[in-house]
Amino acid sequence: MKPEDIKKILQNLKSGKIKSSEAYDKLKNLPFENLGFANLDHHRTMRTGLPEVIFAPGKTSTQIIKLISSLKKSGIDVMITRADKTLFKQVKQKFKTAEYNSDARIMHIAAKRKKQIYDDTVLVISAGTSDIPVAEEAAKTLEVMGHKVKRVFDVGVAGIHRLFAHKEVLSEASVITVVAGMEGALASVVGGLVDVPVIAVPTSVGYGASFNGLSALLSMLNSCVPGVVVVNIDNGFGAACAASLIVKGKHK
Amino acid sequence: MKPEDIKKILQNLKSGKIKSSEAYDKLKNLPFENLGFANLDHHRTMRTGLPEVIFAPGKTSTQIIKLISSLKKSGIDVMITRADKTLFKQVKQKFKTAEYNSDARIMHIAAKRKKQIYDDTVLVISAGTSDIPVAEEAAKTLEVMGHKVKRVFDVGVAGIHRLFAHKEVLSEASVITVVAGMEGALASVVGGLVDVPVIAVPTSVGYGASFNGLSALLSMLNSCVPGVVVVNIDNGFGAACAASLIVKGKHK
Amino acid sequence: MKPEDIKKILQNLKSGKIKSSEAYDKLKNLPFENLGFANLDHHRTMRTGLPEVIFAPGKTSTQIIKLISSLKKSGIDVMITRADKTLFKQVKQKFKTAEYNSDARIMHIAAKRKKQIYDDTVLVISAGTSDIPVAEEAAKTLEVMGHKVKRVFDVGVAGIHRLFAHKEVLSEASVITVVAGMEGALASVVGGLVDVPVIAVPTSVGYGASFNGLSALLSMLNSCVPGVVVVNIDNGFGAACAASLIVKGKHK
Amino acid sequence: MKPEDIKKILQNLKSGKIKSSEAYDKLKNLPFENLGFANLDHHRTMRTGLPEVIFAPGKTSTQIIKLISSLKKSGIDVMITRADKTLFKQVKQKFKTAEYNSDARIMHIAAKRKKQIYDDTVLVISAGTSDIPVAEEAAKTLEVMGHKVKRVFDVGVAGIHRLFAHKEVLSEASVITVVAGMEGALASVVGGLVDVPVIAVPTSVGYGASFNGLSALLSMLNSCVPGVVVVNIDNGFGAACAASLIVKGKHK
Amino acid sequence: MKPEDIKKILQNLKSGKIKSSEAYDKLKNLPFENLGFANLDHHRTMRTGLPEVIFAPGKTSTQIIKLISSLKKSGIDVMITRADKTLFKQVKQKFKTAEYNSDARIMHIAAKRKKQIYDDTVLVISAGTSDIPVAEEAAKTLEVMGHKVKRVFDVGVAGIHRLFAHKEVLSEASVITVVAGMEGALASVVGGLVDVPVIAVPTSVGYGASFNGLSALLSMLNSCVPGVVVVNIDNGFGAACAASLIVKGKHK
Amino acid sequence: MKPEDIKKILQNLKSGKIKSSEAYDKLKNLPFENLGFANLDHHRTMRTGLPEVIFAPGKTSTQIIKLISSLKKSGIDVMITRADKTLFKQVKQKFKTAEYNSDARIMHIAAKRKKQIYDDTVLVISAGTSDIPVAEEAAKTLEVMGHKVKRVFDVGVAGIHRLFAHKEVLSEASVITVVAGMEGALASVVGGLVDVPVIAVPTSVGYGASFNGLSALLSMLNSCVPGVVVVNIDNGFGAACAASLIVKGKHK
Amino acid sequence: MKPEDIKKILQNLKSGKIKSSEAYDKLKNLPFENLGFANLDHHRTMRTGLPEVIFAPGKTSTQIIKLISSLKKSGIDVMITRADKTLFKQVKQKFKTAEYNSDARIMHIAAKRKKQIYDDTVLVISAGTSDIPVAEEAAKTLEVMGHKVKRVFDVGVAGIHRLFAHKEVLSEASVITVVAGMEGALASVVGGLVDVPVIAVPTSVGYGASFNGLSALLSMLNSCVPGVVVVNIDNGFGAACAASLIVKGKHK
Amino acid sequence: MKPEDIKKILQNLKSGKIKSSEAYDKLKNLPFENLGFANLDHHRTMRTGLPEVIFAPGKTSTQIIKLISSLKKSGIDVMITRADKTLFKQVKQKFKTAEYNSDARIMHIAAKRKKQIYDDTVLVISAGTSDIPVAEEAAKTLEVMGHKVKRVFDVGVAGIHRLFAHKEVLSEASVITVVAGMEGALASVVGGLVDVPVIAVPTSVGYGASFNGLSALLSMLNSCVPGVVVVNIDNGFGAACAASLIVKGKHK
Repeated sequence: MKPEDIKKILQNLKSGKIKSSEAYDKLKNLPFENLGFANLDHHRTMRTGLPEVIFAPGKTSTQIIKLISSLKKSGIDVMITRADKTLFKQVKQKFKTAEYNSDARIMHIAAKRKKQIYDDTVLVISAGTSDIPVAEEAAKTLEVMGHKVKRVFDVGVAGIHRLFAHKEVLSEASVITVVAGMEGALASVVGGLVDVPVIAVPTSVGYGASFNGLSALLSMLNSCVPGVVVVNIDNGFGAACAASLIVKGKHK
Repeated sequence: MKPEDIKKILQNLKSGKIKSSEAYDKLKNLPFENLGFANLDHHRTMRTGLPEVIFAPGKTSTQIIKLISSLKKSGIDVMITRADKTLFKQVKQKFKTAEYNSDARIMHIAAKRKKQIYDDTVLVISAGTSDIPVAEEAAKTLEVMGHKVKRVFDVGVAGIHRLFAHKEVLSEASVITVVAGMEGALASVVGGLVDVPVIAVPTSVGYGASFNGLSALLSMLNSCVPGVVVVNIDNGFGAACAASLIVKGKHK
Repeated sequence: MKPEDIKKILQNLKSGKIKSSEAYDKLKNLPFENLGFANLDHHRTMRTGLPEVIFAPGKTSTQIIKLISSLKKSGIDVMITRADKTLFKQVKQKFKTAEYNSDARIMHIAAKRKKQIYDDTVLVISAGTSDIPVAEEAAKTLEVMGHKVKRVFDVGVAGIHRLFAHKEVLSEASVITVVAGMEGALASVVGGLVDVPVIAVPTSVGYGASFNGLSALLSMLNSCVPGVVVVNIDNGFGAACAASLIVKGKHK
Repeated sequence: MKPEDIKKILQNLKSGKIKSSEAYDKLKNLPFENLGFANLDHHRTMRTGLPEVIFAPGKTSTQIIKLISSLKKSGIDVMITRADKTLFKQVKQKFKTAEYNSDARIMHIAAKRKKQIYDDTVLVISAGTSDIPVAEEAAKTLEVMGHKVKRVFDVGVAGIHRLFAHKEVLSEASVITVVAGMEGALASVVGGLVDVPVIAVPTSVGYGASFNGLSALLSMLNSCVPGVVVVNIDNGFGAACAASLIVKGKHK
Repeated sequence: MKPEDIKKILQNLKSGKIKSSEAYDKLKNLPFENLGFANLDHHRTMRTGLPEVIFAPGKTSTQIIKLISSLKKSGIDVMITRADKTLFKQVKQKFKTAEYNSDARIMHIAAKRKKQIYDDTVLVISAGTSDIPVAEEAAKTLEVMGHKVKRVFDVGVAGIHRLFAHKEVLSEASVITVVAGMEGALASVVGGLVDVPVIAVPTSVGYGASFNGLSALLSMLNSCVPGVVVVNIDNGFGAACAASLIVKGKHK
Repeated sequence: MKPEDIKKILQNLKSGKIKSSEAYDKLKNLPFENLGFANLDHHRTMRTGLPEVIFAPGKTSTQIIKLISSLKKSGIDVMITRADKTLFKQVKQKFKTAEYNSDARIMHIAAKRKKQIYDDTVLVISAGTSDIPVAEEAAKTLEVMGHKVKRVFDVGVAGIHRLFAHKEVLSEASVITVVAGMEGALASVVGGLVDVPVIAVPTSVGYGASFNGLSALLSMLNSCVPGVVVVNIDNGFGAACAASLIVKGKHK
Repeated sequence: MKPEDIKKILQNLKSGKIKSSEAYDKLKNLPFENLGFANLDHHRTMRTGLPEVIFAPGKTSTQIIKLISSLKKSGIDVMITRADKTLFKQVKQKFKTAEYNSDARIMHIAAKRKKQIYDDTVLVISAGTSDIPVAEEAAKTLEVMGHKVKRVFDVGVAGIHRLFAHKEVLSEASVITVVAGMEGALASVVGGLVDVPVIAVPTSVGYGASFNGLSALLSMLNSCVPGVVVVNIDNGFGAACAASLIVKGKHK
Repeated sequence: MKPEDIKKILQNLKSGKIKSSEAYDKLKNLPFENLGFANLDHHRTMRTGLPEVIFAPGKTSTQIIKLISSLKKSGIDVMITRADKTLFKQVKQKFKTAEYNSDARIMHIAAKRKKQIYDDTVLVISAGTSDIPVAEEAAKTLEVMGHKVKRVFDVGVAGIHRLFAHKEVLSEASVITVVAGMEGALASVVGGLVDVPVIAVPTSVGYGASFNGLSALLSMLNSCVPGVVVVNIDNGFGAACAASLIVKGKHK
């Protein structure tokens, strides 16, 4: 319900087209989303170009297929994160356009509507090869949302010259997502080299005192580089959403 | 050292202006900062408009005054965070232009050069009155960096209508910083209402099982709203830096 | 043993019907449960209408069937929580009236005696679809105990208008149970909107820094809304028992 | 704004008393609190009889006096928790009716309006003498809110007969608050003896592996007695609020 | 090597039966265990009547069988803890006298030598039925070591009268081992009732905030009853050893 | 109330010396302690020879003096732990016989009655000089309780020969208390050398990753020596109580 | 690229053998490793004699075989840690010279080049038999790197004379690696006996409050013996690398 | 007691110079330190050149002066760590040669004997200025022990070029100690650049989620660079001891 709708009701009342009680009935259920900013919320998914996302773990394939069906009706992209191959095969039978990225563990069922494409590059950097699933979750999510993505993988601080070999890519990015497990030092090193927002994603890669990503998480939260921001452990998807909001903010 | 400089050395060698050993000496100490993006690093402070920052806790007033003197020479703003009134009085005697914001616990010694001012609004929201020092640290830091800041304080989720009363301010911000202690729920609620980047700052406000901010920190890292990013507990300064980088990215 | 019983023993002794040593023997083994409130304890299950509950994990089907047999003899409801389908099939062969709620993972073997039904509504709210098993454990337990239950599921704070759409249900409940994982913010938001007791149930839903429900647990314990109370992670059953005691307290 | 107010605006518009644009202006800012249940929130403090509460730690006496002044205008009780004697003396000079309970560390400035008094007894039990400040915070808060309170202090499980000596008081309470530090076992023992809601308050009393109340908190969350609910460490005030809501629920 | 042996060497040297260099050779390798108390260590197993114990988890059946063979040669009891049925069957084929207690998960291969039997009763109490494997590990270990054991199981504090029904057994025990998971309150309650040593064994029974036994462990360490001592989570074996040393100390 | 007392009441009733209602009144308040083992509890302090103990931290000197006065009436020893010199001076003015051990931080006001003295030696070992306050708390408590104590201090594993120099003392003790901070290794080393009960007391001595005693606590709980038992961090008093119960058990 | 190479380019330019632009092209891509110390990094693997290492967990056999192929081309040793038998069989089919050490869980494909052998002995000590896999990982890694290794296994502090029986081996080692789980006390005991560097490796061996190696880790970090250094839980490989660097430092 | 001493006793016995019982008496108290390697332990301090060290916190000045007096008698260096200025002044009055390094918080009373000086350079690197006290503790300790130390301070990864500017110093060191708080990333970066042992010292510098050094500690333990070893938080002294042992190992 837009401001115009409210005005119309009032004018209709004024002009006698509707009765006072009818106007009240229409207004009393005034949906929350009419309250200015709040309707931003209701239509958030479409406006921001974020696909609807289903987090697969803990859901049966039947539940997931039901969710896809219902989401597809609104004509938007559907994305399933942390999906395995078996799930993909089951979904593929129902939704022929489903695509699967096994590195990212992401299934994607594209909507037909044309998507806006953004020129800014989002750079996704990973420290080790074991961090790639999380890095790919970020990269693939960004691509589905219409972003240009560059990937620089396996450039951890144990051999810091590997990172420096990519200096040009680093200096061209609008936003950088750094994905690292173990001690997570890469986020600080990258943050110290650039002047764009850096979103750090700790991963659960490691063993022993990495405590399933706690070490990398704390490391990133305590970065000596001001301005590095952090998302949950293994949350490549969340980092992609934050990067997307930053890029889209440039085009408002 | 620019590519041109290297070429020049080689041409001088070629043309006999310098000897082979001289060329070698010049090249062997090829400073790191000549490697393209790396010199970005060296001058990071000036380019980004970030003031040089001194974190006061654990430093004596003598040490701090020495640091200010040395930093002021480079002609940039100097900012001292987590500073108390006593420190301010001592610094003020030496640096007459020093200003102090007791809510933010920030001392600021402005540089003379004219600063760029950015039009985008950064909104700083705090959940409770006890979170204000951290919120003010973020707000004041942003202002020193040339940003327009709006403050919406004391709108925690215990009375969520207080937040909703500020719907217009919410919808106009380019970046939002949410500062909250205790259960930190405000970050998720705000994140669900807007479509701009939300930087969450957990505070150490609370007692018992808040574990000095751990509760709010975990809460924010686990936000059910994708795209909320987090900085360290009480790190208003870091949130301001991240917000600043995002806004400045729009003007590149 | 009631006060009358003791008096009777004494009178019988006085009147010579029994000997001093007989009186002593009867009194010396004076069972604990005769001490007034303590016998409340012994018959707690029946008085409160709480069914006897078997927590399935870590028990073999043989052990569980033995337990059911023994409990059924006292003529009360038997409820098995955290039960899977396989267990249900094995139990069903022995106890034909066994019923299974797969969402709640609860098996129920109803007693024949007529149960009291309470008019007050207990509202069970869940933040996400993944929280439903715990929410259903609470809801189903309440129903077995004779309560009217309303369910409002999937109204997490990422889209807070979904919650507000249920304002009437919220305002009619006598007690509200809020089930949420991840950052657990929903408990505070609901607590801030109502003036009835709110029982918060953190769930282990989430990943990474949710630390198997720790994030939601701390969040709920640190709620900025005074009066929100908390039970153990995933403890839908415990929340139901607390809600039941509150409702039954109104009918004493 | 009540439904009647909306109806009145519409009728005024209908009858020509106001213009369509005036009606729109009045409605467009339709305050959130008009949405049915939400205005419950706005007036929550008055309806529930909960006094406005100021948490003293981290606030200066000047700030607190300002807050009291502003709160007193609404004609309700003002309560300051975790207040020390020095603060009381400063406040007393401004607000002559201020009263101080040094055990509870609570300052109270009573409103003049007559308060409702509830007949149900809320029992506050403490395990040790060191738990009394928290227990008194609960008890005093309840009394300010109009409840009848009984206190049973120093009945920890090290000498369980001390608890049993109070069997009558236990069996007469409508709600019981159990305040205990160290291993917090008292909550489970009390919970096992009664059939009314038990609100457990862990305290930070203890040393070493009590980890400032963590031991008691975990103990209470893991109570083997279903239905025991828990609040934050040392949160006597929160327990009182929950108990108050339960009692008031009986009189709706 | 006993003092007599040293004396003999010296006398043989003195009397010329052996040469100085022979004496030196014998003495230079003077095993550590001859140094008074230290040889207690070497023969600790036999003297204390403790069987040699193999902790099964993480060992292959081949490794375990090799270990049994080697241990059996010294003529002592061999006990395998945390053993499953499959392992038992494999061991049984080689060692016909092997016996298995599935509740305790203990395999026992008795030595032929006659064991001393102690008259004192060691009481093993468990809070819930799920704690029985650990309780049985303690009980069975004690029996193998020659102790009289009484078991009182499933007497947790949720129904404290169940414990009180065993008052005579409680008052007759020389040492009591209390095995409890969840909130572990039973250890404090028992400790408060008796005047003999109480060894508390936290178990990993529970879920959510029990954190695999941490809750019970902290609870027991913080017992308000002075004199309660604690062993590691699930360490029924360790508790049995401690109880055995206490009882045997009475017979020195 | 002893069995004889009950019998007497009954005989008096029988013989007409008292009326039935009088007998009932006497019996109806039948104190818990008459229930066999339970009266052990009531008189626990006197029977076990344990002095009444006041834990000083968090109590005012006024409160402590009041407690001493009340405890002294029962004619038993009074002991105040964690007491500082200032407190001692204040107490000394009222109770002239008060004695203070500044190493142990224990104040003691001896009762006049003659105490039983036990022959068995309890050995108190400390790892470092910083552990001495806790070790002395254990030692002094034991002496007050009538035990013979030997002290072996500063024999940590960094120079393990220092421990071995005390082999005779080690082999003569009936119970050993090992007090150690930092890595707490001493408990395991001692446990491996002796065949008597070893009570380990972790101390908060250390810094950094000692986490106020957590390191030593975990170390002792995980001792590879079966039979080592543990008490709370810095709990020298608790270790003394356990040792005392063990020694007294030998004399029942 | 060595300094000589740079000099040669310059001389060639000088002498006209190459053109200025050719020299520039060669130098502009001047790899980072030419910057003095930085090239240490690039060739680190070969210079230090460390084999290239693949951490197997989380990688498919296909990925691992691809990695081996690529690494083998550089003519160095390839080592796969945490490898199981199945993986070995798959690798063996492709690389016939692959060898497998099942205790160490290490696969090794030796390079043909002759390796330097170091005379110093590195001693690897393990506390229990369950620590052997980690100890063997350290030992085998060292052997592959050309070191002489001595193993002393199963000498935990529960029977400290077992350690002392190896005094000669202890006194001959140049570096000692102590591998221990549970309470990890062995590292301090060994550290106190020797005057060479001691590298402590905590293992995840244990249960309950060992928290997967946390107990041993904290124990070792808090060692009362100055100079003991620590690596991550179960990180036998890392300890071997540190030991290797220490030994090789002696031969520079 | 050397082997010669034992042989002499035996010869004297053989030759009749002493009696068999005299020989026995001499041998039975055979001190532990005679057992070969164990006497290394007794004289460890002198052999290794490590000064005797007193950890000041928690000791009174009287205690410390007493300790110094006693240590000085053995003619070795005495060092007091974590000493403040007040303590120094008190000590200085008694021991005129005492020197104080306020950055390192170390007091040193040099012995007169000539110390060996080692040529190898130990490099001490610190990340931030706040880490300097710990770094200086390491550096000063090394100097007292006779080592050549180079310091490179304030080269954290936020501006990594600052580290690279010291490439020559890095490549010349025999051992490197990296001192860093916050995220501790510097240890991994340095470790990746060099081929000598790197000893990482986490510091408690930081706030919020640094948890008093836990973040840096975990970061360093999880270093992706194999061979980095770690000591306790703030343990500059321990790192110095380890570095010293490594250097001295080169000169054996």
